[in-house]
Amino acid sequence: MAAVSRLVQMLKELGRVTDEPGRLTRTFLSPGMKRANALVGGWMKQAGLKVRMDAVGNLIGRLEASVGSPLAGASRARASVLAHKTLLLGSHLDTVRDAGKYDGPLGVLLPIVALAELKRRGVKLPFTVEVIGFAEEEGVRFTKAYLGSKGYCGKLTETDLSLRDADGVSVAEAIGRWNGLSPSRSKRLGVKALHLKPAHRRGDLLGYVEVHIEQGPVLEKAGLAVGVVSAIAGQSRFKLTWTGHAGHAGTTPMHLRRDAFAAAAEFAAGVEAIARRTRGLVATIGAVQVEPGATNVIPGRVTHTLEVRHADDRVRRAALMQIGRLATRIARKRGVARAWRRTQENGAVACSPRLTAALERSVKAVQGRSLSLVSGAGHDGVVMSSLCPVAMLFVRCRAGLSHHPDEYASPQDLGVALEVMVDFLRKLSADFADKRG
Amino acid sequence: MAAVSRLVQMLKELGRVTDEPGRLTRTFLSPGMKRANALVGGWMKQAGLKVRMDAVGNLIGRLEASVGSPLAGASRARASVLAHKTLLLGSHLDTVRDAGKYDGPLGVLLPIVALAELKRRGVKLPFTVEVIGFAEEEGVRFTKAYLGSKGYCGKLTETDLSLRDADGVSVAEAIGRWNGLSPSRSKRLGVKALHLKPAHRRGDLLGYVEVHIEQGPVLEKAGLAVGVVSAIAGQSRFKLTWTGHAGHAGTTPMHLRRDAFAAAAEFAAGVEAIARRTRGLVATIGAVQVEPGATNVIPGRVTHTLEVRHADDRVRRAALMQIGRLATRIARKRGVARAWRRTQENGAVACSPRLTAALERSVKAVQGRSLSLVSGAGHDGVVMSSLCPVAMLFVRCRAGLSHHPDEYASPQDLGVALEVMVDFLRKLSADFADKRG
Repeated sequence: MAAVSRLVQMLKELGRVTDEPGRLTRTFLSPGMKRANALVGGWMKQAGLKVRMDAVGNLIGRLEASVGSPLAGASRARASVLAHKTLLLGSHLDTVRDAGKYDGPLGVLLPIVALAELKRRGVKLPFTVEVIGFAEEEGVRFTKAYLGSKGYCGKLTETDLSLRDADGVSVAEAIGRWNGLSPSRSKRLGVKALHLKPAHRRGDLLGYVEVHIEQGPVLEKAGLAVGVVSAIAGQSRFKLTWTGHAGHAGTTPMHLRRDAFAAAAEFAAGVEAIARRTRGLVATIGAVQVEPGATNVIPGRVTHTLEVRHADDRVRRAALMQIGRLATRIARKRGVARAWRRTQENGAVACSPRLTAALERSVKAVQGRSLSLVSGAGHDGVVMSSLCPVAMLFVRCRAGLSHHPDEYASPQDLGVALEVMVDFLRKLSADFADKRG
Repeated sequence: MAAVSRLVQMLKELGRVTDEPGRLTRTFLSPGMKRANALVGGWMKQAGLKVRMDAVGNLIGRLEASVGSPLAGASRARASVLAHKTLLLGSHLDTVRDAGKYDGPLGVLLPIVALAELKRRGVKLPFTVEVIGFAEEEGVRFTKAYLGSKGYCGKLTETDLSLRDADGVSVAEAIGRWNGLSPSRSKRLGVKALHLKPAHRRGDLLGYVEVHIEQGPVLEKAGLAVGVVSAIAGQSRFKLTWTGHAGHAGTTPMHLRRDAFAAAAEFAAGVEAIARRTRGLVATIGAVQVEPGATNVIPGRVTHTLEVRHADDRVRRAALMQIGRLATRIARKRGVARAWRRTQENGAVACSPRLTAALERSVKAVQGRSLSLVSGAGHDGVVMSSLCPVAMLFVRCRAGLSHHPDEYASPQDLGVALEVMVDFLRKLSADFADKRG
């Protein structure tokens, strides 16, 4: 299928647009992002989209509803109501440092190719489509994620605008420079001056659909090219500290020890057991510091992270209660003090049942069977869910790898995803015709 | 007791002799060590000892056997045999960085005060006593321990002499400078040129007795001032590496993970359980590195130390076999690779039954009851055991703390230890009189 080759070619070409020679890094409002927007904007135009950029650098290609063909038999008045409805398709164009080519760009480029393919096949859509390339999702430049989709939804706050990058440049200044304002005007940019408001009225939107690589191993294990996301998991992050008593490793008998690492290890094993017996829960201790950290000294203090995610906030909260009791028990038993600090808390986002069912129908049609997955990672859909119903299509990626130059999705799988999107858009049009016609 | 006050005063005064202003640090062949040897040498002379320094900076105070008084009835010939026997008493005068005042100096100063006290009480010893202040035990300057006692025993090797400190100065050069040799001669110093040989013939020695703070909490828990060491534990040290698979903490379900930290934590818990159920065994994981070490990334690799000590080498080896099987089981179950590297291996040193029984008799006489302890930490006795039987008396230290400026042994406890040493020397003399007289 020529369309897939085109998609693979576009991913490859965009993968060369970087801020850092030798590796792919493209951050919010960077020179690389400007070139990426120019490149992708050109492809949007070729596909017949009208291209604009919003104040925060989001690239938006708009294909107006085609009043007529699929609504054969519908009255002109009904068609005009439908024509005001907009379906959003997209993902982000920024990347992590030393990134792969798929995480983000796939969800922007695939819709462009799908729309071009529908055009080639003579299919016209009775609703407007906006393909969005969000300018920021990874949180690299300002260590805060979703600045692109927050801008699109009119949700950027003064706090967001005052964040500073490693060079001391604020979000407001970066936005001002990007839009060609003078340095002094850039410095004074606030939420009001930026006229930041939602890009659409809530009632005008059909929903937001994002295609993304899975970034996990589930599809690969299941032997499937694509799957449909049921929810984006909520997550809690903590920093824990265990304080015992450092001592001589040779002279302190086991029963007189208050070993902070032994406590942390018992806790880690217990957390793993809770996560394993709680369906869909993931819990991770990713960073660990042991002090004083000498071969012959019993650890006196251990600090580590804990991250817990689940698609259902109630399940996550119940697991956290169990984990809390586990920590208390271990601390008490061992005479070791424990301290918790919550560093992040995001509620789960449920995908739209209607859009998800429509995606599943197309996945079944193209792939034979569908698989429902939870997205453990956050996505632009988290923010977009404040504006409209969201749905996500995951594409298998090799070894579940992402945020790495070896990130890879096969042309075959991309072909399946593309065909699913084409089928989804065509059937959605037909649904409209059936209901409204 | 005036003698204890004198000992406390000496410990305090010696504690001020340092290479670093504001904290106590006294390393091998340093200017501070020179001043310490001068100070302690002066005290030795006051106590009637003949003072010398050997080539590696060990300070030696010698009290010749007093032929006569305690051997009333013994023939002159027998007395002269005994007079050739030497009892060694000592410990080290170097310290760790930012050290306490007791670890080392106590075992040098206490015998000096004990000998002065015996003299004051009119007790004469039928054997020669050497009080030794070893120049190096802590391994600070050349990151290798026991250079002092190895020098005394004639066991320094060319490899030892070629060790270099942080400034690139070799042990040979440091010894040359200490002895006033020219830089060029110092550089060429080898084992032969140093005429390093054992300070005594094996048959001439009665044994080596060292007084040391416990550096652990056992005496404090037992409510005793002093205890007698039965053995110096053997130890094995390892560096272990667990290699799993780094992955996204949100998108990788628990059952598909190969979490290196989860493996290490299970191992740590298992090692602790083995140590707890093996009487006298201590096992410690003191230093741990987790990679890549991010909140939202499953650890792909964990490196940590493991140290195992026991007074009986067979018990230690059996425990290591168990620990090895544990690691294999965990690695296999989790699909995680493990690698071991042995970084240190020291056999246990059993204390002399005869000297230990004599020490215990004196401890019982002074303290009411004796307690037998294993020394988990290494001491000069480890090296001295190659030359003669060894025994050790441990003195309670507050909270088991050592290698820290807050290191503390009470004057009361020092008094008990001093009285034990006086009693021990007196009774040892009497034993000789009984046996040989």
